[in-house]
Amino acid sequence: MAELNYEIIETLAVISESPKGWTKELNVISWNGRPPKYDLRDWAPGKEKMGKGVTLTKEELVQLKEALTRLDTLS
Amino acid sequence: MAELNYEIIETLAVISESPKGWTKELNVISWNGRPPKYDLRDWAPGKEKMGKGVTLTKEELVQLKEALTRLDTLS
Repeated sequence: MAELNYEIIETLAVISESPKGWTKELNVISWNGRPPKYDLRDWAPGKEKMGKGVTLTKEELVQLKEALTRLDTLS
Repeated sequence: MAELNYEIIETLAVISESPKGWTKELNVISWNGRPPKYDLRDWAPGKEKMGKGVTLTKEELVQLKEALTRLDTLS
């Protein structure tokens, strides 16, 4: 697999932390020098490894926000 | 890789759809018969393939909702 270059531009939120120190984070990340995207995924302590995750555009994040706001089970 | 069994209990939101028909969805999914979790990932048309994604607990989704609500750039 080709090396994956990324730069974490901004950490917007740490959603949770596991007993082993992995964190689920919402970040703004530039992958391989491309324009930054929103990114939700798990990270090992010190960002030494990354788990699977999803990248989202701003519009997708807006839609997600609206969906979560509608969910009665979360309030 | 072992076969992955899953059941989509409920589709809570379709966040976006690509030109090729892939959708980014927030679902409630039971993986391998385990208790259902929230799940954010891309799906091919007809759910024939799944992309990478993240599963979230209810508490993580609450934290994510609060983080998105705080983000001025999304409003």
